Amino acid sequence: MNPLEEALAIKDRIVEWRRDFHMHPELKYEEERTSGIVEEHLREWGYRVKRVGTGLIADIGDGERTIALRADMDALPIQEENEVPYRSRIPGKMHACGHDAHTAMLLGAASIISDHIDEFHGRVRLIFQPAEEGGNGAVRMIEGGALHGVDAIFGLHVWADLPSGIIGIRDGPLLAGAGIFRGRIIGKGGHGASPHQTVDPIPVAAETVLALQTIVSRNVPPIETGVVSVTSINAGKAFNVIPVEVEMKGTVRFFKDEIGALIRRRMEEIFDGITRAHGASYELSIEELTPPTVNDPKMSAFARRVAEKYNLRYGDVEPTMGAEDFAFYLQRVPGAFLTLGIYNEEKGIIYPHHHPRFDVDEDVLPIGTAMEVALAREFLRG
Amino acid sequence: MNPLEEALAIKDRIVEWRRDFHMHPELKYEEERTSGIVEEHLREWGYRVKRVGTGLIADIGDGERTIALRADMDALPIQEENEVPYRSRIPGKMHACGHDAHTAMLLGAASIISDHIDEFHGRVRLIFQPAEEGGNGAVRMIEGGALHGVDAIFGLHVWADLPSGIIGIRDGPLLAGAGIFRGRIIGKGGHGASPHQTVDPIPVAAETVLALQTIVSRNVPPIETGVVSVTSINAGKAFNVIPVEVEMKGTVRFFKDEIGALIRRRMEEIFDGITRAHGASYELSIEELTPPTVNDPKMSAFARRVAEKYNLRYGDVEPTMGAEDFAFYLQRVPGAFLTLGIYNEEKGIIYPHHHPRFDVDEDVLPIGTAMEVALAREFLRG
Amino acid sequence: MNPLEEALAIKDRIVEWRRDFHMHPELKYEEERTSGIVEEHLREWGYRVKRVGTGLIADIGDGERTIALRADMDALPIQEENEVPYRSRIPGKMHACGHDAHTAMLLGAASIISDHIDEFHGRVRLIFQPAEEGGNGAVRMIEGGALHGVDAIFGLHVWADLPSGIIGIRDGPLLAGAGIFRGRIIGKGGHGASPHQTVDPIPVAAETVLALQTIVSRNVPPIETGVVSVTSINAGKAFNVIPVEVEMKGTVRFFKDEIGALIRRRMEEIFDGITRAHGASYELSIEELTPPTVNDPKMSAFARRVAEKYNLRYGDVEPTMGAEDFAFYLQRVPGAFLTLGIYNEEKGIIYPHHHPRFDVDEDVLPIGTAMEVALAREFLRG
Amino acid sequence: MNPLEEALAIKDRIVEWRRDFHMHPELKYEEERTSGIVEEHLREWGYRVKRVGTGLIADIGDGERTIALRADMDALPIQEENEVPYRSRIPGKMHACGHDAHTAMLLGAASIISDHIDEFHGRVRLIFQPAEEGGNGAVRMIEGGALHGVDAIFGLHVWADLPSGIIGIRDGPLLAGAGIFRGRIIGKGGHGASPHQTVDPIPVAAETVLALQTIVSRNVPPIETGVVSVTSINAGKAFNVIPVEVEMKGTVRFFKDEIGALIRRRMEEIFDGITRAHGASYELSIEELTPPTVNDPKMSAFARRVAEKYNLRYGDVEPTMGAEDFAFYLQRVPGAFLTLGIYNEEKGIIYPHHHPRFDVDEDVLPIGTAMEVALAREFLRG
Repeated sequence: MNPLEEALAIKDRIVEWRRDFHMHPELKYEEERTSGIVEEHLREWGYRVKRVGTGLIADIGDGERTIALRADMDALPIQEENEVPYRSRIPGKMHACGHDAHTAMLLGAASIISDHIDEFHGRVRLIFQPAEEGGNGAVRMIEGGALHGVDAIFGLHVWADLPSGIIGIRDGPLLAGAGIFRGRIIGKGGHGASPHQTVDPIPVAAETVLALQTIVSRNVPPIETGVVSVTSINAGKAFNVIPVEVEMKGTVRFFKDEIGALIRRRMEEIFDGITRAHGASYELSIEELTPPTVNDPKMSAFARRVAEKYNLRYGDVEPTMGAEDFAFYLQRVPGAFLTLGIYNEEKGIIYPHHHPRFDVDEDVLPIGTAMEVALAREFLRG
Repeated sequence: MNPLEEALAIKDRIVEWRRDFHMHPELKYEEERTSGIVEEHLREWGYRVKRVGTGLIADIGDGERTIALRADMDALPIQEENEVPYRSRIPGKMHACGHDAHTAMLLGAASIISDHIDEFHGRVRLIFQPAEEGGNGAVRMIEGGALHGVDAIFGLHVWADLPSGIIGIRDGPLLAGAGIFRGRIIGKGGHGASPHQTVDPIPVAAETVLALQTIVSRNVPPIETGVVSVTSINAGKAFNVIPVEVEMKGTVRFFKDEIGALIRRRMEEIFDGITRAHGASYELSIEELTPPTVNDPKMSAFARRVAEKYNLRYGDVEPTMGAEDFAFYLQRVPGAFLTLGIYNEEKGIIYPHHHPRFDVDEDVLPIGTAMEVALAREFLRG
Repeated sequence: MNPLEEALAIKDRIVEWRRDFHMHPELKYEEERTSGIVEEHLREWGYRVKRVGTGLIADIGDGERTIALRADMDALPIQEENEVPYRSRIPGKMHACGHDAHTAMLLGAASIISDHIDEFHGRVRLIFQPAEEGGNGAVRMIEGGALHGVDAIFGLHVWADLPSGIIGIRDGPLLAGAGIFRGRIIGKGGHGASPHQTVDPIPVAAETVLALQTIVSRNVPPIETGVVSVTSINAGKAFNVIPVEVEMKGTVRFFKDEIGALIRRRMEEIFDGITRAHGASYELSIEELTPPTVNDPKMSAFARRVAEKYNLRYGDVEPTMGAEDFAFYLQRVPGAFLTLGIYNEEKGIIYPHHHPRFDVDEDVLPIGTAMEVALAREFLRG
Repeated sequence: MNPLEEALAIKDRIVEWRRDFHMHPELKYEEERTSGIVEEHLREWGYRVKRVGTGLIADIGDGERTIALRADMDALPIQEENEVPYRSRIPGKMHACGHDAHTAMLLGAASIISDHIDEFHGRVRLIFQPAEEGGNGAVRMIEGGALHGVDAIFGLHVWADLPSGIIGIRDGPLLAGAGIFRGRIIGKGGHGASPHQTVDPIPVAAETVLALQTIVSRNVPPIETGVVSVTSINAGKAFNVIPVEVEMKGTVRFFKDEIGALIRRRMEEIFDGITRAHGASYELSIEELTPPTVNDPKMSAFARRVAEKYNLRYGDVEPTMGAEDFAFYLQRVPGAFLTLGIYNEEKGIIYPHHHPRFDVDEDVLPIGTAMEVALAREFLRG
């Protein structure tokens, strides 16, 4: 069995699925229709399916080893601006990150694997998860048992920064860890003409914003990566009333957990020290949403060998500061998150992820399916 | 005629007027009821009355010289918290700055002057103005002719920072000049994880806020007075979107016009330089609302002599950073703005102006009336 | 006896003394020659003289009350640039603040008082002190008993900001309180390419400098006066070594002790908080050199009456941020520090104090002498 | 011929050379003794030697292709603290960065290559350069013709961050580009009590230091590397004199030239904007000392194959922010800069480069020699 030939043979079905999902986007944790369609096919093809909310854990085959393949199914609250026949039919919702393609490709792989199950010497687990976009659906799937007995896991993401058809494989950190924070600098309000009777929180917040810059400029090692962005600062409404407090929000990014911890510690120290300096107080909550997505070098090396063996074009891919909840799987099980290039100027597929004109070069879909089939086959070869 | 005896003789009426006004507060430029009552009395007492909106210009007597006396009539959008029989009957409105007392005292003076008009060797002009609170009603009155032919002007303000019954008289600046500003720091928005693709306006605004501190700490001469308060700073709502711009508001205060000009020039330079430093741009509008209220030393000396002569207790009074539109009259005509102490611990009259429990020690009302009558009588004595 | 007539009669001698002192300037605590000449005259005229180092305490007359008059004798380490016959003969030293005139005027007064001692109904004490310039000679004189039994004290300073011949008299603060500080921000040094292995003290010092600006801009009441100047900041020498620490120096100024205390407290809080925010530590010493020079309003009123009575021209004088150790006398005994205008464009006497071309309009010398004589005579009149 | 066997056979000589150089360290551009010894050997072994100052360009063999191997010879102005028989005999000078080992290893390679010249099918060029430490000796050598006709170049640096004996090989940037800057913020000096009469350059410098932090925190892309360190800030000496100017020094680091250019542009904009904001002016000179040391991926891949073939242990090595003038060779000719691990806890060889107790595990010397021989042999194999 040649995975790419098999995938090309069912390309029309994969494209059809993708377009159907694209026309019917569903936001995080609302993936009823999508998961219903997927489940129906999987059961038909002999998969043992377990539901976890709107997510699915589907097993086929048996043996000592288990490989998991994962796709995400949720769409985004974006109004599509593409003029294509398969344009989103739901106002204000759009598959602008390619999860429609991910689901369709894995569905194609499911079909091929089912057809050739005796060539897979172990168990294949497919994870169709909800809510990758801001919902950490991966965590729910893990709680639902998605990684139980799993020896390795792979995910595949269409990638606007790679030329169409290239599989991007990277060792180590690929996507950033992300946290959000909310801070309050609490002073004492009063009249704008009498600052001495207040603890004016606005200069204190200004000093805090500037002190936060030193985390990246002075504390994060230069060869490591960190981002601290204050994205929102709000205080006061009137022209002559010094407000009681300033509210700040923002995001932090990092590729290593220890850098994330360093950033959190430094933020706490800075809020503490600067407010003390001025007789103000503070509240600060920093919530880690997603850890960094870190590929196991053995697993990315394995993926390169698989691509080599099956004549699938591959290359390196740059890390980016975006975050992915696939990171949660990789915290627990060896694996790799791969990317699949879709950038195609000729076809006008040039828009970044989350853009209202984002689209996927559908010629890559069989390549993604083939890679998934090939990874499973080789991994279970032992 | 002894002004204080005359005033004490009609104390009950003055108190009654004040309480009536207190129970029926009217916000700026809505002083219909108040001005209607005042006008009715003035006409009855023989004054020649001219209406300027809800304001009144009322003349009596004739001669070479004219002295103007001014009261303001507007209330504030504050919910009264005093439990007194004359408590405000209008929810959310309150005479929390004593303009009810100012109007009542001048009405008392009007009555006495009218009764003894042959002892006044010139013309007395009474100005009952609207909208002192944030409305610059004085400017409308001046435009309406209030200062036409006027040789000197006096105003009297009840004063919570002086002991009850003392007339506070100061040479030079008594109240501050005030301006408001509105600034925008305009950068380039983007994703919080990709600051390098943005011009993040938040650190630029932080630097601007701190640079603005140096106007007072470095540029205003230490023995002069200046205030620059950023009272509002607003930018962004989301956790991971760097906003396009930061909006700032605030107030400036000063006792001399050249300090006001210095502050404005420095603000412009700071917004310009700091935004240039970061490839951002800015908008800044600084509006001077009110000039400093500066007493003519000859007029304050005159007021001291009058108080001395008529056995009215007086003393010095500290300048404050508040602003008063009486300043506009003093820009054009010599005069003085006097204060009348109302602070009385025994009576529980201890709350500052604009406080929901602000009240006036009514025993001072005849003193204010007497001082006004005396100022007019002495000034017109020639 | 008319003090001004008496003084004019000995004008030549006063000028001669002043020129002699001017040609032979002596720095702080080195006033051997000057005090020697003064002492010789005083003894000759019948004064009871006590030496305190290079200072002199000289009494004459007796009675229930004692008035002290003070002059300072020290010069400055400045190279004179005036081309006058009485130019300083000591290279690098100059009477650039008028203490030569102060000494000469008081010597003139001493002579007149001695001549007419029966018109002074009490004791006159003359204090000729060393080291006003940075030496707090006043403190040594006080420790030496200069204020023992003194009921009132007056000092007189020639004043470049007043027109020649005018005596400037002010109630309350005339000269500032002054302190100096020395701060160290202690981080952890290292290589400039590896900031993450250091605690870089330079950004911490930068934040501290900016936070210090908020003391004056936010904490000192706008109608009060305060100055906090970081005048020196030093750290590091190499291009690629992050230094261990930053050293800062500076001065603070204020007109009221409570403002001085506020500044000190805020400085301590700022150094503490900002260094904590960055894991650095600090040392800060703030030394109060001189308290504010605050005139007793009764004593300045007395001085005005004296000037009025003896037809000496007087007026108001603006406070300045300079400091004077006369403040130490005024902390302990009622009194006033008066100024004597010397500004005279026609004569080219236009340079500020401490300028290499500073000079004194010698026509004012008898006026100063006369005022001193008159103060003593009137004070002792009872 | 087996390079490692050959190298082990002459290990004693290599160690002897290294110890001799170690005992006689010479600072940059003073490498007379060292280069003399090297030259003598090279001539003896048949090399065609050209002198460039204290540097040597030595060729052997002939053919279509030329490979260059480079060692640096200079020592550091550091006082050695090791207690070893071969301790530096020159007070205040020390081979604290291993250039003694580099020279000895390449001399060993020279000897082996000479012995087996017929196995090298092309020309081998050895570059013994002066002044790697802060002298950019590489530039002089290039100007002297060192790269004329060279097809590839390799350098080898002993490396305290790698376990002893491992050859560290990296694709792309290994060492940082480095620049130094010198800035002056020029205000207007004056008395510390009169800031309003000055343009106080110290708060302006403080704002500049903080604004510079935003280059790394906001402008450099998070996945790229940049350092901007202000390492020196100096202004003022007195407690009460606001100085005219602040002088700053520092270093910048980067792995890509475009990041270096970005940093320079942003620094210029920041000095310009911040000084404009305060009516100050500035001077800023930024000098690029060394470009980033960037290995050609084909050449590092070649080095890996060579190590593999000759059974020399190799691995990856982390980039560091240090700078190396080998970068100048790599700007012009393909090549790679390799590292050779020397960290050995058992032997107490644990101190970082430039430390007074830095030392080299001499057991690695034949490995370095072997790698150099092997690189030349394989490269010239064609």
